[in-house]
Amino acid sequence: MSTEFVPPAARFSALPGVFPLLRGGTLAGARVAYETLGRLAPERDNAVLVLTGLSPDSHVASHPGDPAPGWWEAMVGPGKPVDTDRWYVICVNALGSCKGSTGPASVDPATGAPYGPDFPELSMEDIADAAAHTVRALGIERLACVIGASMGGMSALSLLARHPGLARAHLNICGAATSLPFATAVRSLQREAIRFDPRWNGGRYAGPDTEHYPHRGMLTARKLGMTTYRSAREWDRRFGRGRIPAERRAQAGPFGPEFEVEAYLERHARRFSGRFDPNSYLHLSRCMDRFDLGESCGSATAEALARIRLEKALVIGVETDILFPLGQQREIAEGLGAGGTHAGFLALESDEGHDAFLVDTDRFGLPVAKFLTTL
Amino acid sequence: MSTEFVPPAARFSALPGVFPLLRGGTLAGARVAYETLGRLAPERDNAVLVLTGLSPDSHVASHPGDPAPGWWEAMVGPGKPVDTDRWYVICVNALGSCKGSTGPASVDPATGAPYGPDFPELSMEDIADAAAHTVRALGIERLACVIGASMGGMSALSLLARHPGLARAHLNICGAATSLPFATAVRSLQREAIRFDPRWNGGRYAGPDTEHYPHRGMLTARKLGMTTYRSAREWDRRFGRGRIPAERRAQAGPFGPEFEVEAYLERHARRFSGRFDPNSYLHLSRCMDRFDLGESCGSATAEALARIRLEKALVIGVETDILFPLGQQREIAEGLGAGGTHAGFLALESDEGHDAFLVDTDRFGLPVAKFLTTL
Repeated sequence: MSTEFVPPAARFSALPGVFPLLRGGTLAGARVAYETLGRLAPERDNAVLVLTGLSPDSHVASHPGDPAPGWWEAMVGPGKPVDTDRWYVICVNALGSCKGSTGPASVDPATGAPYGPDFPELSMEDIADAAAHTVRALGIERLACVIGASMGGMSALSLLARHPGLARAHLNICGAATSLPFATAVRSLQREAIRFDPRWNGGRYAGPDTEHYPHRGMLTARKLGMTTYRSAREWDRRFGRGRIPAERRAQAGPFGPEFEVEAYLERHARRFSGRFDPNSYLHLSRCMDRFDLGESCGSATAEALARIRLEKALVIGVETDILFPLGQQREIAEGLGAGGTHAGFLALESDEGHDAFLVDTDRFGLPVAKFLTTL
Repeated sequence: MSTEFVPPAARFSALPGVFPLLRGGTLAGARVAYETLGRLAPERDNAVLVLTGLSPDSHVASHPGDPAPGWWEAMVGPGKPVDTDRWYVICVNALGSCKGSTGPASVDPATGAPYGPDFPELSMEDIADAAAHTVRALGIERLACVIGASMGGMSALSLLARHPGLARAHLNICGAATSLPFATAVRSLQREAIRFDPRWNGGRYAGPDTEHYPHRGMLTARKLGMTTYRSAREWDRRFGRGRIPAERRAQAGPFGPEFEVEAYLERHARRFSGRFDPNSYLHLSRCMDRFDLGESCGSATAEALARIRLEKALVIGVETDILFPLGQQREIAEGLGAGGTHAGFLALESDEGHDAFLVDTDRFGLPVAKFLTTL
């Protein structure tokens, strides 16, 4: 099932024979999907690693190998803020995802069948270690920068803490060093929506084109996510009290969607539901809840951040982000700064909430470009 | 089924033989549950009407007829901010609720069976009209004040617009003159959780003690509500990254609750699920989405508010309220003020979000008491 989700230009990095996971399990013959853009300099000093949020794949932007627009198309490419004329950009798909890296939808070599519910417990630290391995396998001992957004902001911090010296600089966008209860509650409800869909069936379901796939749960999970990805202010402006035309409402039956905002959620969730593996979603979602850089390092969050040694860092947050609120980015910047890193903190006024880095790229472009120019 | 939800001291006001609903239906032999506290003055000029949020019943506070604490116990009683030594307080249970007023769980006199999914489409305006009828049936032609909180802040505005002269003053708490898309999205997902629970069965389910009741959907709906009733800041302080003891986690199975915030949601939702009729929940939830004072009055919101004639009003909101955000209370105060009402606006700094009026009563007590003293 998973192959259809893999971007065409993805390449694969094999993880060491038996890859140990933080919580005790192992993965045999696992791999990580990645794509590269630009050219690695002979000195191997211009590599920039991009770590993604929960759902994106390795196709961060179009390149000769795949001209389709990527998920951060406006930000990455020749002459763009993450300028591939200068930087060799590596975008890694998270371990556990269904977009080419080994995840619950992958075949377990021990059984010849997909892992499904038997996929071992995954942690943010494993995602970080798999990304670090991929970088080193490309012959890169020192990255110019690690860029991580959303969940990628978590895995980036984990990578920096667990692999000292692997990066000179860090750009953290709408990330967090730990999960707070509101985000955990939302993700817990998203997981419930999937787990309690009878078609999830304890993690043993068929493909999205069959009757035995938990579409219902995936739709609710995605819609719920969307209520936290943007901001109320943006929706006021965008939808107001706009209504769905009466004839379409009638088809929806009693208590069905009536307002434009409901149709918007339904439309976007339908686009997502069959294109992300439900078990993969559950694992990555739980990785986020469990992530706590301090706990992972056996210290307070601030101390764990201060122990990360970098030349420079920039941490960007958005005032309307309710999922990774601004205080979390301030915490990262202050913690890195306390350890001697030259760390900047930027609070953007965007209306687009947590998703601003994906959609309000006009606002993000300049500070990202400026930061990378100084490296 | 509905009788078990009715507070013991509730009294009932019969609505006129066939009560017309705004969207075209009618209710025959309908009634509204209410309770009164204090004594009506011989001049009949000391009556204060309290309109409730979605879930509360008529038992606003303890009184000789029912010594059990009410849902606003700290605020209503002898010597309390809503002082029953002075005021004759009438608390009305919303039409459509399952707490004694006629709702989907009530028996339809035409069939002798509960309305269930055949309950006619309800509107905020109907809830307002039923409350106004109840007030007049008590021989009161002019209320000293209408107090409405949350959904009650909507039905109060509707009552004031539709029944000019029925009240001298108004206290609106965490209310709104219209629904905005974020709140609509959250309520839409709550309704989906109920509608897509197979045991909702198109609105034909059995009692909460049976296997044929949509507990699963009700739990999710309530939990989702709770993520919007408080504030992220309060939860950070209250739960942080506290975990459920390992032995209780093991029972929950894979992907089950792990953090205290998850256990808290589960605990509270379980308390609610069997105590509110799912069809009633759907109707009242949709009434809120559809409510728009301007639309109801055939004008812009500001104009509709300005047309309401009152001597005085106080509108209170809470900075951390994400469901009925502060701008909505400011809008009410400005609109009423533009029409000549002496209207105050108060933004409280409480951490408790939308629920602050229920739990942070220390902060609400003084301004409410002061406002009522000036009447």
